[in-house]
Amino acid sequence: MNSYYQHYNTVASGLALSIEIIGTLAFAISGIVVAARKRLDIVGVSMVCGLSAFGGGTLRDILLDRRPFFWVEYHNWLWVILGLCIAAMIFLRSKHIELTEKSIQIPDALGLAMFTISGTQIALVSGSPLFVSVLMGVMTAIFGGVLRDIACNEIPQAFTDHRPYAVIAFIGSWIFIACNHLLMSDWMATMISFMTIVTLRMLAIRFNWSIPSWLSK
Amino acid sequence: MNSYYQHYNTVASGLALSIEIIGTLAFAISGIVVAARKRLDIVGVSMVCGLSAFGGGTLRDILLDRRPFFWVEYHNWLWVILGLCIAAMIFLRSKHIELTEKSIQIPDALGLAMFTISGTQIALVSGSPLFVSVLMGVMTAIFGGVLRDIACNEIPQAFTDHRPYAVIAFIGSWIFIACNHLLMSDWMATMISFMTIVTLRMLAIRFNWSIPSWLSK
Amino acid sequence: MNSYYQHYNTVASGLALSIEIIGTLAFAISGIVVAARKRLDIVGVSMVCGLSAFGGGTLRDILLDRRPFFWVEYHNWLWVILGLCIAAMIFLRSKHIELTEKSIQIPDALGLAMFTISGTQIALVSGSPLFVSVLMGVMTAIFGGVLRDIACNEIPQAFTDHRPYAVIAFIGSWIFIACNHLLMSDWMATMISFMTIVTLRMLAIRFNWSIPSWLSK
Repeated sequence: MNSYYQHYNTVASGLALSIEIIGTLAFAISGIVVAARKRLDIVGVSMVCGLSAFGGGTLRDILLDRRPFFWVEYHNWLWVILGLCIAAMIFLRSKHIELTEKSIQIPDALGLAMFTISGTQIALVSGSPLFVSVLMGVMTAIFGGVLRDIACNEIPQAFTDHRPYAVIAFIGSWIFIACNHLLMSDWMATMISFMTIVTLRMLAIRFNWSIPSWLSK
Repeated sequence: MNSYYQHYNTVASGLALSIEIIGTLAFAISGIVVAARKRLDIVGVSMVCGLSAFGGGTLRDILLDRRPFFWVEYHNWLWVILGLCIAAMIFLRSKHIELTEKSIQIPDALGLAMFTISGTQIALVSGSPLFVSVLMGVMTAIFGGVLRDIACNEIPQAFTDHRPYAVIAFIGSWIFIACNHLLMSDWMATMISFMTIVTLRMLAIRFNWSIPSWLSK
Repeated sequence: MNSYYQHYNTVASGLALSIEIIGTLAFAISGIVVAARKRLDIVGVSMVCGLSAFGGGTLRDILLDRRPFFWVEYHNWLWVILGLCIAAMIFLRSKHIELTEKSIQIPDALGLAMFTISGTQIALVSGSPLFVSVLMGVMTAIFGGVLRDIACNEIPQAFTDHRPYAVIAFIGSWIFIACNHLLMSDWMATMISFMTIVTLRMLAIRFNWSIPSWLSK
């Protein structure tokens, strides 16, 4: 998530960093929202928030045998998470939760796109086959939320809500790989797949798309 | 799961490969059945199916620090899993679920035997102590199902149904080790422990055996 | 957990070993108690008991990429766990469960202190940043219980019961690091933080302390 955009020019690099920060914060806040619904204590809120923010990338790195983890290399993020959780416990009231969820939809879509693409790219660089790289991209994006829900004793939302979330990550990841095979620059491939994921996700929310359900009872 | 039977003659090797394929498919289908009961969407079905099929071996490889994982080395299996899940969502009706569960009992027993023995052998080769190797064998066989149930928000069936499943794997794994210590060939040790596990499992289903329960309320 | 007190004199080393054994047994018994409440079978009881006893340290070692695990290096512990589980299933009656929980409070506090400090130290030695080392200390102490509760399909007690448990580990771990920075000997730093954690935990139980809750509904 940290070496591949050194080839970009400074503007692009600053943009990528901003999106990464926004995405991580959106994932962290989604963890706080779920933890708040369950009335967890400060330990639970912090752990679930951290799982949401860093769980996907950490699982990917364990599977790929990569170190250091993001939250070890940039360990100041841990203070951000802790501060965010304490602030949430003081200021977040129940009536705000739905509002919070709505307001993180766009940051969350940016995170979905960013983490899918960076996960795919990291897996490709480490020599993974194509489908495995796509899977790593999807897992980077969704497994923070999956671990969050398992820790909160829920069936993972990504597995059961029939909303196109992982499916969009899956499509975007293949588009990224296709662009790479067409010998586009990394920058171009990233841009195209990034815009595709964000656009599809926004359309999915706007028009309330749902993915195919069980055809039969 | 892939290097140790290169010493077998071709027939035996083909047989072992067939059993491995049958076992993996049985584990995958057990994941689809549980996911179908929970009415998960295509993302959930695919993830739970993949966890069932590959979760045990992947966890073993993480613990033993072994790479590549089975599903990375043979990544075409990922297409098989995805195809299986899509087919299941189109064709599997609720009334079929019980039938499906019954019809995978024999393939599942073959998988139980195969993965227990291969897991034990891989751990032994990597220098693990005997009890640890047995544990790795048992975990290879049962932790796909354990992760499947945790992801579906259930207490793992293997922990709570009082059926001899892990216990049979445990016994079979010790028999495999005992045969090895008696200086039998790998082939002989595998055959004996394989037949023991499959036979015990079939008897357990046929006569509805149960393992000792809590003696007291 | 095993190399750092070789510098102590023999008495201290024997003391440390005793505390480690007492702590591990307390964690194992807490697993049996939770498994008994859920009426798991012998497989479930053994697995949950093993997760409680070794889960925290194993997760820490996976994250730090350290091998061998405690239960691989000292594999005879696996027989102890198995024997303990069989004994519990024969002798532990429901009316005993609350009594058992009460009687492991002190051993559990010793385990909390021991595993927090050893986890922190191991992470520091492996070059982790300070906050990451604290987190590893806390995770070593609490994630056995977290994995136990997830396997039993409960929200982890450490996340939700508003009792100061992880918080005390967190404080104790920072005290250990502070003592180290003040150039105290390892032995002195360990003693001070150990006594702090045990004392705080005993006070928390005695006076029924609770950690700050959500301020608002």
